[in-house]
Amino acid sequence: MNVASSVVLANQPVTSEGIVAASVYMEGRRVANIAIDEASSWRSKPGHVVWIGLHEPDMPLLTSVQRQFQLHDLAVEDANNAHQRPKIEQYGDGLFIVARTAQLIGDTIAFGETHLFVGEGYLVSVRHGASTSYKPVRERCESCPRALARGEDYILYAILDFIVDNYSPVLETIQEEVEAMEADVLANAMTRAQIERMYLLRRDLLRLRNAVGPLVEVCRRLEHDDLPMVRSTMQPLFRDVTDHVRTVQEQIDSLREVLAFAFEASLLVGQAQETLVSKRLASWLAIIAVPTAIAGIYGMNFKNMPELQWEYGYFTIIGVILIACTTLYWRFRRVGWL
Amino acid sequence: MNVASSVVLANQPVTSEGIVAASVYMEGRRVANIAIDEASSWRSKPGHVVWIGLHEPDMPLLTSVQRQFQLHDLAVEDANNAHQRPKIEQYGDGLFIVARTAQLIGDTIAFGETHLFVGEGYLVSVRHGASTSYKPVRERCESCPRALARGEDYILYAILDFIVDNYSPVLETIQEEVEAMEADVLANAMTRAQIERMYLLRRDLLRLRNAVGPLVEVCRRLEHDDLPMVRSTMQPLFRDVTDHVRTVQEQIDSLREVLAFAFEASLLVGQAQETLVSKRLASWLAIIAVPTAIAGIYGMNFKNMPELQWEYGYFTIIGVILIACTTLYWRFRRVGWL
Amino acid sequence: MNVASSVVLANQPVTSEGIVAASVYMEGRRVANIAIDEASSWRSKPGHVVWIGLHEPDMPLLTSVQRQFQLHDLAVEDANNAHQRPKIEQYGDGLFIVARTAQLIGDTIAFGETHLFVGEGYLVSVRHGASTSYKPVRERCESCPRALARGEDYILYAILDFIVDNYSPVLETIQEEVEAMEADVLANAMTRAQIERMYLLRRDLLRLRNAVGPLVEVCRRLEHDDLPMVRSTMQPLFRDVTDHVRTVQEQIDSLREVLAFAFEASLLVGQAQETLVSKRLASWLAIIAVPTAIAGIYGMNFKNMPELQWEYGYFTIIGVILIACTTLYWRFRRVGWL
Amino acid sequence: MNVASSVVLANQPVTSEGIVAASVYMEGRRVANIAIDEASSWRSKPGHVVWIGLHEPDMPLLTSVQRQFQLHDLAVEDANNAHQRPKIEQYGDGLFIVARTAQLIGDTIAFGETHLFVGEGYLVSVRHGASTSYKPVRERCESCPRALARGEDYILYAILDFIVDNYSPVLETIQEEVEAMEADVLANAMTRAQIERMYLLRRDLLRLRNAVGPLVEVCRRLEHDDLPMVRSTMQPLFRDVTDHVRTVQEQIDSLREVLAFAFEASLLVGQAQETLVSKRLASWLAIIAVPTAIAGIYGMNFKNMPELQWEYGYFTIIGVILIACTTLYWRFRRVGWL
Amino acid sequence: MNVASSVVLANQPVTSEGIVAASVYMEGRRVANIAIDEASSWRSKPGHVVWIGLHEPDMPLLTSVQRQFQLHDLAVEDANNAHQRPKIEQYGDGLFIVARTAQLIGDTIAFGETHLFVGEGYLVSVRHGASTSYKPVRERCESCPRALARGEDYILYAILDFIVDNYSPVLETIQEEVEAMEADVLANAMTRAQIERMYLLRRDLLRLRNAVGPLVEVCRRLEHDDLPMVRSTMQPLFRDVTDHVRTVQEQIDSLREVLAFAFEASLLVGQAQETLVSKRLASWLAIIAVPTAIAGIYGMNFKNMPELQWEYGYFTIIGVILIACTTLYWRFRRVGWL
Repeated sequence: MNVASSVVLANQPVTSEGIVAASVYMEGRRVANIAIDEASSWRSKPGHVVWIGLHEPDMPLLTSVQRQFQLHDLAVEDANNAHQRPKIEQYGDGLFIVARTAQLIGDTIAFGETHLFVGEGYLVSVRHGASTSYKPVRERCESCPRALARGEDYILYAILDFIVDNYSPVLETIQEEVEAMEADVLANAMTRAQIERMYLLRRDLLRLRNAVGPLVEVCRRLEHDDLPMVRSTMQPLFRDVTDHVRTVQEQIDSLREVLAFAFEASLLVGQAQETLVSKRLASWLAIIAVPTAIAGIYGMNFKNMPELQWEYGYFTIIGVILIACTTLYWRFRRVGWL
Repeated sequence: MNVASSVVLANQPVTSEGIVAASVYMEGRRVANIAIDEASSWRSKPGHVVWIGLHEPDMPLLTSVQRQFQLHDLAVEDANNAHQRPKIEQYGDGLFIVARTAQLIGDTIAFGETHLFVGEGYLVSVRHGASTSYKPVRERCESCPRALARGEDYILYAILDFIVDNYSPVLETIQEEVEAMEADVLANAMTRAQIERMYLLRRDLLRLRNAVGPLVEVCRRLEHDDLPMVRSTMQPLFRDVTDHVRTVQEQIDSLREVLAFAFEASLLVGQAQETLVSKRLASWLAIIAVPTAIAGIYGMNFKNMPELQWEYGYFTIIGVILIACTTLYWRFRRVGWL
Repeated sequence: MNVASSVVLANQPVTSEGIVAASVYMEGRRVANIAIDEASSWRSKPGHVVWIGLHEPDMPLLTSVQRQFQLHDLAVEDANNAHQRPKIEQYGDGLFIVARTAQLIGDTIAFGETHLFVGEGYLVSVRHGASTSYKPVRERCESCPRALARGEDYILYAILDFIVDNYSPVLETIQEEVEAMEADVLANAMTRAQIERMYLLRRDLLRLRNAVGPLVEVCRRLEHDDLPMVRSTMQPLFRDVTDHVRTVQEQIDSLREVLAFAFEASLLVGQAQETLVSKRLASWLAIIAVPTAIAGIYGMNFKNMPELQWEYGYFTIIGVILIACTTLYWRFRRVGWL
Repeated sequence: MNVASSVVLANQPVTSEGIVAASVYMEGRRVANIAIDEASSWRSKPGHVVWIGLHEPDMPLLTSVQRQFQLHDLAVEDANNAHQRPKIEQYGDGLFIVARTAQLIGDTIAFGETHLFVGEGYLVSVRHGASTSYKPVRERCESCPRALARGEDYILYAILDFIVDNYSPVLETIQEEVEAMEADVLANAMTRAQIERMYLLRRDLLRLRNAVGPLVEVCRRLEHDDLPMVRSTMQPLFRDVTDHVRTVQEQIDSLREVLAFAFEASLLVGQAQETLVSKRLASWLAIIAVPTAIAGIYGMNFKNMPELQWEYGYFTIIGVILIACTTLYWRFRRVGWL
Repeated sequence: MNVASSVVLANQPVTSEGIVAASVYMEGRRVANIAIDEASSWRSKPGHVVWIGLHEPDMPLLTSVQRQFQLHDLAVEDANNAHQRPKIEQYGDGLFIVARTAQLIGDTIAFGETHLFVGEGYLVSVRHGASTSYKPVRERCESCPRALARGEDYILYAILDFIVDNYSPVLETIQEEVEAMEADVLANAMTRAQIERMYLLRRDLLRLRNAVGPLVEVCRRLEHDDLPMVRSTMQPLFRDVTDHVRTVQEQIDSLREVLAFAFEASLLVGQAQETLVSKRLASWLAIIAVPTAIAGIYGMNFKNMPELQWEYGYFTIIGVILIACTTLYWRFRRVGWL
C-alpha cells in the first residue's frame, strides 16, 4: 500500500505530505494541478471542478481544505479519526460520505476507510488505512472526458464504483478457499488448523458485512433522495452501484451461511468418525479378549484339569481360539464395525 | 442445453451466431422473420411487436440491438456480463428485467440468467448459461394469437411464467431426494456420503433462494407499480406469477428448514448410536473380565491354594464363571445395554 | 371424508358428480335447490343469494359455474389445480379466496384446500383433498336465518370461521403428544423412535404454519380493506376470525419453539448419559484390573518368589484384592461415577 | 386465589355468584354498591362511573351485564371462553381489551386472563383462571379520589398498570433461579434434573412472552390512537404502562437468551467433562496394562527362560514394573490427563 | 465512583446531599452557583440556563426540583426508582430522557442510569448506580463558552455524547479479551474457566446491547423529530451522536456473533480432541493386547505344547511380540492415530 501510494506521490505535484493529487477539471479535461489554498478560487469559476485526493492527512492539512470549501466541523472531525460506519450526511449543500474499503493482503482482509466531501464544484477524497489509491479512477476518468465533464457527482460515482468493484476479488478469494475447504471438511473431520481457518473466515466475512451492509443504504439514498448534489441524470449510475453492492452483500451472506452449514456438517462428520473409532476399538477388544480369556482358563493350576492331559489339547484350543476370532472378525466386518 | 438451442437455431432464420429468433408479430400472428437491423423500422409500425431472442450474444451483436431500440448503456453492459441479481429497472420508457433460471442437469442444479428488454413494440430476451430455450414459450404464444395480440407485455408475462414454472421440477426432484434421505437418516446415523449430499442440497437450496427471492419483488412491481410498459389489464396475470414465485419461495424455505431439522435429528441419532456402542463395549468388557480375573487368580503359583487340590475345583470354577457371565449377560440385556 | 360427503350428496338434489350442494337463499331461508345453469338467473333476483358447494369438480363443471358468475379465467384455473398458497384476490367486483384446511387422520395431519368465489349474490366453495364437508356450516347457517340473511359475506365468514376452528383439534392433539413426549425425553435420552416422531412433528408444524401464516393476511384484508364485497358491519366478524387465526399461529410457533428446546435438552441429556456410561465403564475396568494385575504377578514363574511359599500368602493376597476392590468401589461411588 | 376472592366477596354486596364488586363512583368517591340491573340507569347519570368486577361469570350473568351496556356479541363471547390473545378492539364507542396475567404458584407460573369492557361511564372487568383480585386496585383508587375522578379511563389505566406490575415478581423469581443455576451449570455438567428445570424455565418464559408481547401493541394503541374512550390527558399514563411492558419484555428476552447461552455453555462443559473421563480412563488403563503384560510374559511356561532362574529376578521385575508405572503416572499428570 | 463524586461535592456549594452541582449560565459563562429553590426565578430570566446535577437524590430533593420546573409526576417517579429502559418522552414543552451508562469496574461491566429533564432554560441530570460524574462534561462546556452559549440543548448533547463515548473503553476491553481468548480456544478445547468467562462475556454483551439499543431511537428522535426543545441547528450534533451509538451497537453485535462463532468452533475443537483421545486409547490398547494375549497362550499348562520345549522358544516369542508391537505402532503412527 505504502509502496503504491508513494509511487502515486512521485507522479504528482505534491505540495504537502498527505496530498495525493489536487487538480482542476473543465469539461472533463485537467486544466491545472493546484495547491490547496488555490482551491476555493478555482472552484467558484463556472464549469470548473476541483478534485483533491488526500491520504491520512494531518489535522492542519484537513483544516486548510476545510477552509477552502467551508466543510462542516463534525464532518472534518470524522474524517480525521477514521473508524466510522459507512454513511451519507448532508451538511448545507455539501455531502459527506463514508465508505469502508477492503483488500486482501496475504490471506487476511485489510480494511480501510474513505471519506468523501462533495459539493458544487469540488470533491475531496480522504483515504485511511489499507486502501488502494484512486489513481486508476483518476486515470479512467481522465481518459473519458465526455463522462467526466458531467461534474463532481460523476467523480463520486466513479470512486464508489471503484470501491465496490474492489470487494469482488476479496470475495472471490474467500469463495475459492471455502470451496477448497468444503471437500476436505466433508471427507474427514476438520483438523484444528481447518477449524481455525474457518473461524477466521467467518470473522472476516462478518467484518466485510459490516463494511458493505450500511453502504447499501448510502447508495440507495444517492439513487432515490433529492440530494442537492446529485443530478437526476446520474441516478441510473448510482442505481447500478446499489445493484452491485447488493450483489456483493448477497454473496457475503451466502458465504456466511455456507460456512455455517459446513460447521454443522463437520460436527456430524466428527461424530460419525468418533463412533467409527469406538466401533473399531470395541471390535478389536472383543477379538483379543477371546484368546486372553481362554488362555487364562487353561493357565489355571488346578490339579484336575482333564483337557490339559489330552495329547492334542493345546492344538485343539489354539484351533478353537482361531475359529472364534475369525468368526468374530467376519461378523464385525459384516455389520460395518470393522 | 447446447443440443436444444442448436436445434432451435436450425429451425430459425438466423442471421448471426447468438440470435435464436427475431420475428415481427401483428395481432398475435407472425408477420416476418427479420434481421436485427430491420428491427427499428418494424417496431415503429403501429400494432407491430418485434420479438428477438438472443443466447450469449457477443458485444457487437448486443450493440446492434441496442442501436435499434435505444437501450441504456448500463442495461446493455449488465446484459453482457451476466452475474446480476434478479431486478427490474426502468430506463426512460423501457424496462430492463433480470431473472435467474434453474434446471437440473444430473443431480446438480445448473443456474442461468435471462435479461429482458421490453419497450413499446419490442421485447429482447438475452439468455446466459444453463437455461432452457424459450422456443416453447414462442410456440405456445403463436398457438394462441388472441392472447399474443395483447402485445409485448404479454410476451414478458409468458417468459416470466415459463421461468417460474421451470423451478418446479427442480424443487420436486430435491423434495423427493430429501424425503428418501429422511427415512435413512432417522433409521441410522448418517454416513459421510449422506452428510455430504445433505450439505450440497442445503447449498443448492441457498442458491435457489437467492435466485427466487428477489424475483418476488420484480413480480410485485410489475403487478403494482405504474410502469409505463404494463397495461393495467395485464396485472392479474403478473399477480398470478407473483403468487407462483411466492409458492416456490415457500417450498424452498420449507425444504431448507426440513434439512436443518434433519441435521439436528441426525446429531441426536448419532449421539444415541455412540451411546449404544459404548454400552455394548462396556457390557462385553464386563462379561469377559470375569473369567479373566478368576482364571488369573487360579493361575497364581502359591504353594498353598486349597481349591487347586479339590477333585472338582476346576469344574466348579468353570461353573461359577459360566453362571457369573450368564447372569451379567441377562442383566445387561434387561437394562437395554445389550 | 368420502363417507361424509357421500352422505351429503344423498341429501341434496345433485345434478352432477362434484356438486355437494346448490341452493338459493332469501332472507336467510332456503328457497330452492337449483341446478348449476339456473344459478345466474336466481342470483340476479334482488335479495337472493346462491350458495354452491363443489368437491374436486372436473373442468367442465367448473367451466359451467364460471359461465354463471363470469369468474376470472386465472381464478378458475387456480381452483382447478389446487396447490395454492392461502390468498385473497379481487377480480372486478368478485373475490377469490384460497385457504388451506387441516385435519388429523390417524396421527398425521392431512391438508386440504378450499377455494371460495364470492360476489354480489353468490358464493361458490371448491374443496380439494382432505377437508371436512361444509355441511355443518350450511346447517348452522340455516338454523339461524337472521344471521344468514346478511348475505354472501356472512356465508364467507361462516366458512372461514369453520376452517380456522378446525385447526384447533389438530393443534391440541399435537400439544398433548408433545407434552407426553417431554417427560420421556427429559427422563432418558431419546430413542430413535422418539427422535423420528419429533422430527415428523416439527415437519408437520412447519406445514401447518405454511397453511396458517398467509391466512392471517387474508383475514386482515377482509377486516381492513375496502373490498366491494364486504359490508362494514361484517368487519367485527372478520376481525374475530383474524384474532382466531393469530391465536392458532401463536400456538404453532410456541410448539415449534418448544420442540426446538426439547431437541436441545435431549442433546444435553444424551451427553450426560454418554458421560455416565463412560464413568461406569471406567470404574468397573479399574475395579477388575486390580485382581487381574495382582494375580498376573503371582502367576509369574520366578524361581525365587518368597510370598508364594508363605503359608497364608494366597489368603493374604485374596484379602488384599478384596480390600483394594472394595475401596475403589466406594470411592467411585462417592464421586458419583457408580 | 379462591381465598382472596372469597374475602373480597364477603366485603361486598354481591347479588350473584361471580360478581366480585359492583359500585358507582362520582367525583372519585363511591356513591353506592349496586345490583347489575341498576347499572344502566346509574351509568347514564352525568359524572357517574359504574365499575363492575366479575370472576369467571356464567353466561346468564354475562348476558345481563351485556344488556346493561349494550356490549357487542363477539366481545361477550370472547369474555366467556377465555383463551384469547391480548388485544384491544373497538366496538362502536366501547373498547374491549384482553390481557394475560401471570403469577407464581409454587415454582410454576400460573396464567390467567382479564377481559375489560370500557365505555362512557362504565368499566367491567372479567377475570379468568389464576389472577390476583383487583381489590388492591379498587382500594388504591378509592384512596385517591382526585385521580379516580378522571373517570373510567383512569380505572382502565390502574388495572393495566396493576397487571403489568404483577409480572415483575414472577420475572424476579425466575431471574434468581437462573442466576443460582448459572454457577452450578458452569462448575459441572448439568444433571438431568437441572436440564429439566432449565427446559421448563425456557418453556415458561416462552409462555410469558406470548402473554406480554401483544400487550405492547395494546398499550401503544391506548397511548397513540384516537380512541373515543381515552382522553388525551391520559396518554402520559398509558405511555408509562407501555414503557413498563417494554421493560418486562426486554427482561424476558434477556432471560431467554441467557438460558440459551447456558445451554450452549453446558454442552461445552459436558464435552470437556467427557473428554476428561476418557483421558483418565486411558491413563489408568495404560498404567495397569504394564504389570499385566510384563507379568503375563513371566507367567509363560517356556523351559528355557533365564530370568526366571535369577536370584533376584522377581524383585528386579517388580522394580521395573513400579518404575514404569510411576513414570507413566507422572507423564500423564504432566500433560493434564490425570 | 463515590470517591469521584465526593471530590465533586467538595468543589461545589452543595446545599443538600445528592446535589452535585447547581449553577446558572449566561452566554456560556457561569453566572452563579445557586440553591435549588432559586432555580425557577433564575430560569425565567432571558438568556439564562440553569444546570443542576443530582446523584441518587432522595424524594424530597426530587420534589423540590420538580416544583421549580413543573416536571411531570410520572417522569419524576421514573427518575426516583431507576430501572428504566432508555427512552425519550415529551411532557408539555419539557423533555424527559433516560440513558443507561456503562463502565468497567475490575473485569465486570457496571451499569448505571442517567435521567435528564430538559426544558426552556434548564437541564437537570439525575445519576443512579455506577456512572461517571458529569464533572468533565461541565468543565469541557465551561471551557468553551461559545458552544455552551447555545443553551440547554447543547448541554443535553454534551452529556449524551459523553455517555456514548464512555461505552467505547468498555467495548475495547471486551474486544481485547475476546481476541486473547480466541487464540487459546482454537489451540485447545476450552477449559471450564474459559467457558465460564465466555458465558459471562456473552451475558454482559447482552446487557450492554439492552443499554445501547434503545438509545439509537432516542438519538434518532432528537435528530429528526420536531421537538420543541431542540433547535434545528443542533441536529447535526445529535446526528453525530446517533452515528456514534450505531457504531457502538455494530461493535456489540459483532462481538456477540464472534463469541457465538467461538462457541461453535470450540465445540468442534473439543470433538476433535475427544476423537484424538479415543484414537490414542484404542492404539495403545491394541499394542498392549498383543503381548498379553500371546503370553497368556504360552502360560497355559497343557502337557503337550511343543514350543515350550524349544531351546529358544522364549526368545522367539519375545521377538515375535516386539515385532508385532513395533509394526502396530508404526501403522497407527502412519494413519495419524498416535
